[in-house]
Amino acid sequence: MAQAKWIWYFGDFEIYHHMLLSCRRQEFGCDYPCCWHVSRPELNVRFYKTFIAEKEFELTVTSHSKGMVRLAGKLRPVNQPILCPPGEHTVSVELYDIEKFPACFIDSECLVTDESWAAEAFDRSPAPVGCEPVFSSPADDPAVFPFSYREIAPVSVEEARDGILYDFGKETFAALEFPDLRAVPLFISYGESREEALDAERAILWERIDSAGKHICPPRAFRYLWLHGENVARIRFRAYYEYLEIEDRAAFSCDRPKIADIWDVCAYTFHLNTREFFLDGIKRDRWVWSGDAYQSFMIARYLYNDPSVTERTIVALFGKPPYRTHINTINDYSAYLILSVWDHYFATGNRTFLEAVYPKVQTLFAFIAGRLDERGYVVKRTEDWIFIDWGELDKDGPHCAEQILLWQVYNTMAKIAQTMGAPHEEVKRFLLAAATLKFRILDDFWDAEKGAFIDSFVSGKRFVSRQTNVFAILYDFVDGETKQSVIDHGLLDPALPAITTPYFKLYELLALCKIGKLTDAQSYVESYWGGMLNAGATSVWEAFDPARSGAEHYAMYGSPYGKSLCHAWGSGPILLLCRYCAGVAPASVGTKTFDVRPNPGLYRRFSATVPIRDGFVEVTYEAPELKVRSTVSGGTLYLNGRHVPLPVNETVRAVIR
Amino acid sequence: MAQAKWIWYFGDFEIYHHMLLSCRRQEFGCDYPCCWHVSRPELNVRFYKTFIAEKEFELTVTSHSKGMVRLAGKLRPVNQPILCPPGEHTVSVELYDIEKFPACFIDSECLVTDESWAAEAFDRSPAPVGCEPVFSSPADDPAVFPFSYREIAPVSVEEARDGILYDFGKETFAALEFPDLRAVPLFISYGESREEALDAERAILWERIDSAGKHICPPRAFRYLWLHGENVARIRFRAYYEYLEIEDRAAFSCDRPKIADIWDVCAYTFHLNTREFFLDGIKRDRWVWSGDAYQSFMIARYLYNDPSVTERTIVALFGKPPYRTHINTINDYSAYLILSVWDHYFATGNRTFLEAVYPKVQTLFAFIAGRLDERGYVVKRTEDWIFIDWGELDKDGPHCAEQILLWQVYNTMAKIAQTMGAPHEEVKRFLLAAATLKFRILDDFWDAEKGAFIDSFVSGKRFVSRQTNVFAILYDFVDGETKQSVIDHGLLDPALPAITTPYFKLYELLALCKIGKLTDAQSYVESYWGGMLNAGATSVWEAFDPARSGAEHYAMYGSPYGKSLCHAWGSGPILLLCRYCAGVAPASVGTKTFDVRPNPGLYRRFSATVPIRDGFVEVTYEAPELKVRSTVSGGTLYLNGRHVPLPVNETVRAVIR
Repeated sequence: MAQAKWIWYFGDFEIYHHMLLSCRRQEFGCDYPCCWHVSRPELNVRFYKTFIAEKEFELTVTSHSKGMVRLAGKLRPVNQPILCPPGEHTVSVELYDIEKFPACFIDSECLVTDESWAAEAFDRSPAPVGCEPVFSSPADDPAVFPFSYREIAPVSVEEARDGILYDFGKETFAALEFPDLRAVPLFISYGESREEALDAERAILWERIDSAGKHICPPRAFRYLWLHGENVARIRFRAYYEYLEIEDRAAFSCDRPKIADIWDVCAYTFHLNTREFFLDGIKRDRWVWSGDAYQSFMIARYLYNDPSVTERTIVALFGKPPYRTHINTINDYSAYLILSVWDHYFATGNRTFLEAVYPKVQTLFAFIAGRLDERGYVVKRTEDWIFIDWGELDKDGPHCAEQILLWQVYNTMAKIAQTMGAPHEEVKRFLLAAATLKFRILDDFWDAEKGAFIDSFVSGKRFVSRQTNVFAILYDFVDGETKQSVIDHGLLDPALPAITTPYFKLYELLALCKIGKLTDAQSYVESYWGGMLNAGATSVWEAFDPARSGAEHYAMYGSPYGKSLCHAWGSGPILLLCRYCAGVAPASVGTKTFDVRPNPGLYRRFSATVPIRDGFVEVTYEAPELKVRSTVSGGTLYLNGRHVPLPVNETVRAVIR
Repeated sequence: MAQAKWIWYFGDFEIYHHMLLSCRRQEFGCDYPCCWHVSRPELNVRFYKTFIAEKEFELTVTSHSKGMVRLAGKLRPVNQPILCPPGEHTVSVELYDIEKFPACFIDSECLVTDESWAAEAFDRSPAPVGCEPVFSSPADDPAVFPFSYREIAPVSVEEARDGILYDFGKETFAALEFPDLRAVPLFISYGESREEALDAERAILWERIDSAGKHICPPRAFRYLWLHGENVARIRFRAYYEYLEIEDRAAFSCDRPKIADIWDVCAYTFHLNTREFFLDGIKRDRWVWSGDAYQSFMIARYLYNDPSVTERTIVALFGKPPYRTHINTINDYSAYLILSVWDHYFATGNRTFLEAVYPKVQTLFAFIAGRLDERGYVVKRTEDWIFIDWGELDKDGPHCAEQILLWQVYNTMAKIAQTMGAPHEEVKRFLLAAATLKFRILDDFWDAEKGAFIDSFVSGKRFVSRQTNVFAILYDFVDGETKQSVIDHGLLDPALPAITTPYFKLYELLALCKIGKLTDAQSYVESYWGGMLNAGATSVWEAFDPARSGAEHYAMYGSPYGKSLCHAWGSGPILLLCRYCAGVAPASVGTKTFDVRPNPGLYRRFSATVPIRDGFVEVTYEAPELKVRSTVSGGTLYLNGRHVPLPVNETVRAVIR
C-alpha cells in the first residue's frame, strides 16, 4: 500500500490557514481585519474511492470532523473500526466541520487515503483532494499548522525608562510564555527597533496582560521587547521562535565581503516571511499580497527550490470563486497570480497542480476580461485599485503598465490552455487577443518623440514612467529598435523619476540584468542593501532612503514605526545573483532543460550553488577561469558567444573572455 | 434614537444557523452530513454609517467578534468606551469572526445600530445589514438561536424488555438532561412510535452515554424513550421541550368534530417544524428543502401571518451564490424558491426584503437559464434531480411539469423585475420567454387525443400524470376548453394513477379547490388525515397508507422506522380551510386588497378566524346564514355571484344560496 496521508478537499488546507493568518494582524492594540474578502473552507465534503479488497479487512476512518462512512451498503460512524468484506467497493466518507475543515485519514491493509481519492463539496462536481506529506499519521491534525519552535534568548537586558528592555540581537518572530505572572497588569511593547519598543504608545504591536497566572502571547515580530509593570525586573518569561523548517538550497559568495552579509540577511528575511504562505512582512501586514508573492515565488525557486510554499500561496490567493473584486482588490495583482501559475508550472512541470487550479485560473481570467472597457483595456472600475507602484505615475484613464500585463496574461492563458488540452480555437482566441491588444497599445501609448511608452494617453501629460517601460522589457513586449529606444529613453535616462520602492526596484533590476546591465544591478545591491545593513538592519526593510538617519528610517504610512523592518520583497538579491550572475534559468517546461549563462559582472571571484530539479549547478569563478558542474542532465552552458551541453557531474572549465 | 439592534451582514444570521441546522442530522448513531452544498457566513465584514453628533458622546461597540472601529481618524478596539467628538462622522466597524459570524451592537446617545447601517464583506459592494428584533441588548448573542424551553414530563413509565420505556403522550422535540449519571454506559433509544423506541437496533435515533456525571443530549424528536443500562430504574432525568415562540393567528371549527382534531394536530405538527426555518420533519431529515418550504410558506401565511420564519427560510435556501447545483440539487426546487419570493412579496409587500434577496434571485435565475437545452427546456443535466414527486412519472427527456414551472418562473421574474424597476426591455424579455415556452409546451406536450398534458414526448409512452396536469391548473397555464379538458382528463379521470405523497396531494387538493371541488378536498381531509389520527397519529405523518396497519405504518425508504411521523407538509388542511372554505386570499401586492369567498362545502356550520395584514377576518356560517367581519380595510366579499366591499369592523350578514 502507498503511504497514507490525511486528505481534504483540494485547497481547503490553504484556505483554512489563510483564513487564520488573515485574522492575525494587530495594530495599536486593535485586531485589524483583512481589508479584502477572505474565503472560508468547505463545510461538508464527500471523499470517495473505488477499490478492490482481496479479502476481508478492518479499517478505521480517522477524522476530527463529524460524519459517517458509506461502505458495502451500510452507514458507519467515523473513528470506529469497520469490517470490510472482500470485493469491489466504492467507499464514501461524508464529513462536515463547522470549526475547521473536513479531513480524514485511513491507513489499512487494503485501503489508504492519498491523492488517488476524489472529493466533492456536495456540489456534484468531482474535485481532487489535497494532502501534505507531513500529515501522515492518525494522530495528526491538519488544522494545526506544522511550525517548528526553538527557544531563543535576549542578547542583552537593560533597565530603560521605568521598565526592562530586552534585545534579541536581531529581528525575530516569537511567542512569549509567562509561566506564572503574579503582578498584573503587565505591559509589553514590541519593537523592530529599539526606538519602537521604548515608544510604547506609538509602537505598532503591544499587549497588556491583565490576569495573573500562565500567559502565552501569540507569536509576533520584534527584535526588542520592553516590559513595564510592577516588579517587572522579577518577571521571567521564555521566548519561542516560530518558524517553518525549509532548507536553503542556494548559496553565493564573492570577493566583495558585503555581499555575503547581504545574502545572509536576505535569506534570513525570506525565511521569516516564509510561513504558511509567503507574507509581505512579519510585523505588518502579515497578509498574503499577490504582487509581493509573485516576487517571493521567483526568489523561492532559487533559495529553496521547494514548491510547497509557492503552491500553498497560489491556492490561498485564488481562494474560492466567485471573484467579487480583484485579488487583494488590485488589478495588477490578479494578473500576477495568473502569470505565477504558468511560471510555477514552467519551473516544476507539476501538471497535477496546474489541473487543480485551472478552474480558478479560468474564473479569474473571466473576471478580468469582464471588466475591460470597450477598447479592451484594463480600466479602473468602481473600487478597483490600479496599483502598479507607489510613486509618480499618471493613472488618468487606462494605464500602459496594466495593458502590458494584460497582454502577458493573454499569452499566458494561451500557454495554459494549450497545456490543458483546450480546443485549438480557444488557444488562438487568446493569441489573437494578445496581438490585437499589442497593436492598440503601440498605437495609443507609444510616444515616438519621447521614444518610450507613456503611462496615459488620456491626461495629455504624456508622462514617461520607468515602471511602464520596465514592464515592456521584462515581458518582452518589444524588440529591435523599439526595444533599444525603450532601454535608452524609458530605462536608462537619468532624467526619469527614480523608482523608490524596493518592490518595483526588483523589476527594474531584473530588466537591467535582462538587457545585460548586471554590473548596474550589482552596484545597486551593494549600495542600497549594503546601506541598509550599515544603518543597522538585521533583516531587509520595506524601504530604505539613504538620506534619512536614525529613527527617521522607521516611519512610513504616516506612523513613526509604520515601516516593516522585515519585508520579503527585499530579498531580491538572491534572485538577481542566482539568475544573472550564476546565470541559471529553466529553458523548458518542468526545467527539463535549463540554461547556465554565467556573468561575473563586477566580481573577480564568485562561487554559486543553484538548485535545479532534484540537483544543483555549481558555478565558480576565479578570474579568468570559470568552473561549472551540474548534478543533473539537461543543462546548456552559454559562454563567450557559444553554447555547450553540460555533462552530468563533470566539471566544465572555461576562461571568460 | 431608534431601538438599537444587533446587526450583521444581510443573510449571515440565517446562513450561520442554517449551517448549524444542516449539521444536526443523525441516523443509526452516525452524524449524517447534509447532501448538498451548504454555505458558510462571511468571515470579515465592515459595517458603516455616516451620522452627525450634535455634541461629544461616548459609545461602545459591543461584539463577540474581533476587530476594530474607525472613527474620527483613529483606530479603536471594540468593547471599550470610545469618546466621539461632535460633527459629521463616518464610523466603520471592521470585524472578523472565525467561529461564528461578524455582528455588533451600539446603543448610545447619538448612534445606534439598526437597519439604517450598511455592510460590505470587504468586497467593495454595499449590502444591507440584517437584524432581528429579539437581539436588542448588549448581552445578546445572535449566534445563539432564541429558542424557548419548557420542561415536559412523561405521561407513563413502564418496564419494557430489560429497560424503562417513557411515553410522553405525543410527539415532541426535547433535550434530555441527566444531572448526575453514575452507572454508564447508558443507552437511550428514541421512538416516534413505541415500536421504534423498543427496537433499539433499528431505531433512527439513539445515543450511548459512556461517561458519568452531568450529561445533556441534544434536542431530538420522539414520543417514546427507552432507557437501558445498569440500575436504569434509578436514573433521573429531565426533558426540555425546545420550541420557537410563535402565535397561532388562525382558527377553524365546524360541525364535523374530527376537523377540530385534524386542525389541532396539523397546527401542532407545523409548530414542531417551525424553528430556525421550516423543516421537512423533526426526526428526519431536519433539513430545509425548498419544495417542502414552499408549502410551509403557504400554510404559515394563514396560521401565523408572521413573515419572520418565511424570510429566514428563503434566505437560508438561497445561501451564498454561486450556484453549483440546483437548490437542494433539485430542478423544481430552484423554481419554487423563485416563486416563493414573489408570493411572499405579494402577501407582505416587504420591499426591503425583496431588494435584499433580488441579487440572489437573479443569480439563481441565471443558473436555471444557463442549463436549459437548445429548445429552451429544463432537462436533466449531470447530477440534476428532476424530482416533481415520488411515484409513477415518465421522466424520459424534458418533463412537462418542469416546463410549466419554468413558464411560471418567467412570469414571476417579469413581475419581480418590474417591481424592482428593471428596464422595460428586461421585463418584456421574461414575458416573451414565457410566451415562447408556452407555445412550445402546447406543441410538444399537449395530447389532443387524450385531452391532457403528457409527461414526455420523447419516450413515446404518451403517459398522462396527475402531477403535470395539476400544475397546469395550479399555475393557470391553460384556460377555456383546454382547461376543462385538463380537468376532465388530467385531474378527475379515476383511471389515472393516484398521487401517493401528501406532498403532491396538497397541490392536487389546491387544484381541486381552485376548480370548485372543495367538497372533494374536505372529504379527503376527513378520510386521509382522519384516518391517520384513527391510526394513533399525534402529529401528521410523512405519508399514510390506510391499507397498512400497526408498525407497518412506520416503514419508509427501506427502513422499518424510516418514516417521519411529524412532517410539515402534512399541515395542508390549515391552508385549504382558510383559503377555500373561509375563502380569504390577498388580491394585490402587500394584501392591500383581499378577497373573501366563503364556501361551506360539506359543512353546515363553520367558524374561521383568518389573519390578514395586522388584523383578521372572521367568517362564521350556520346554514344558511353567513357572517363576515374584517378588522382591516381593503376586503371584498364575493358571494352568490356578487361582490361587496367589506366595511371595517362591521359584521356583514348574508344567506348563502
